[in-house]
Amino acid sequence: MKFCANCGAEVVRRVPPGDTLERWVCDNCGEIHYQNPKLVVGTIPERDGKILLCRRAIEPRYGYWTLPAGFMENAETTAQAALRETLEESGAAVELGAPFTLISVPRVSQVHLFYLARVREIEFKAGEETLEVALVEEAAIPWREIAFRTVAYTLKQWFEDRKRGAYGFHAADIA
Amino acid sequence: MKFCANCGAEVVRRVPPGDTLERWVCDNCGEIHYQNPKLVVGTIPERDGKILLCRRAIEPRYGYWTLPAGFMENAETTAQAALRETLEESGAAVELGAPFTLISVPRVSQVHLFYLARVREIEFKAGEETLEVALVEEAAIPWREIAFRTVAYTLKQWFEDRKRGAYGFHAADIA
Repeated sequence: MKFCANCGAEVVRRVPPGDTLERWVCDNCGEIHYQNPKLVVGTIPERDGKILLCRRAIEPRYGYWTLPAGFMENAETTAQAALRETLEESGAAVELGAPFTLISVPRVSQVHLFYLARVREIEFKAGEETLEVALVEEAAIPWREIAFRTVAYTLKQWFEDRKRGAYGFHAADIA
Repeated sequence: MKFCANCGAEVVRRVPPGDTLERWVCDNCGEIHYQNPKLVVGTIPERDGKILLCRRAIEPRYGYWTLPAGFMENAETTAQAALRETLEESGAAVELGAPFTLISVPRVSQVHLFYLARVREIEFKAGEETLEVALVEEAAIPWREIAFRTVAYTLKQWFEDRKRGAYGFHAADIA
C-alpha cells in the first residue's frame, strides 16, 4: 500500500493513537487502513468413500492436488462460500455437513475452514482454476503432490475420523 | 474506495476478466483490489460458573454488554487473537479451550468465532474499549442489553450446553 484509497494522498506506516500496531495511515484525510486475515473456505466432498480432489491450474502450486476451496467473498456466509467454491472449482454440487477443520496460517495471514460434504451431482468439467478433477480413495491419495499443508492436515484427519467412526471438529495452527 | 492504493489513480467498479463479481479495478496499473470478510475472534471466559462480560465504551452499541472479542490481526492465529482481545478488553488472562461458535454475519461481511475459556487471573480494570467488566451468573445476564446477536447466540448455546453437561461446537448464520 502506497496511496490512500480514500483521498489518493501518500500513506505512512505508523501506530495510530490508542492503537498498539503499525497501520497504513493517511495524514491528509486521517483514514486508517486496517489489513486483516482472509478466510479460505472449502469442502471435503465424499462419494462412495472416495474424496474429490482438484488439480490446480493456477499458481501457487500449479499442477498439485487440492480440495476445492477459495477466498470467502463479502456478503456471503461461510457455508455459501464453501458451496460456491466447490461448484466453481470442481463442477460438483454437494450437500454440506458440519465444519470439520479450522486452521490458522499466520505466515500468510489466512484462516482455512473446510466443511464435510457429500457429492450429489458431478459434472466432470474442470473450472478455470482446475486442470482435472478426480474421485480418489485413501490408498491413492497423492500425499507428495498435495498443494497445501492445510489440505493434507484436513485429509489426514478425515481418514482418521472415518476409521474411528465419527467425524469431529478440529482446530489447528500451521507454524 | 476511490483511489488505487498501489499507484494513486482513480479506481473503477467492474468485473475483471475471468471473474464473476464486481471489484475495484485500477486501469492505470492493472491492480485489482479484492475486499473480503473479516474475522472477529473472542472468548466466553468462565469462572465459578459465571461468565465475564464487558460493557462497551465504544460505538457501535456503546454501553451494551458483550463478550471480549475483536478483529483478528494479520500474522496471528485465531487462538492468539482470542487471548489478546480478552486481555485487552477485560484484563483477564484466560486458559483457552476449544472453538465453541462460528457465526457468519453476511450483512456486515464478518465471521465471529468464540472460544471456550477459563479465567486464570483477572485484574478488574477495564480496557480502552470497555466501561466495566463483571462476572455474571446465568440468571443475571442482561439479555436485553447484549450488544450483538452473535454474542447472545453464543451465551445461549453455552448455558444450554452446560445444562446437558457437554460443550459442543456450533456453526450458525445471522440473516
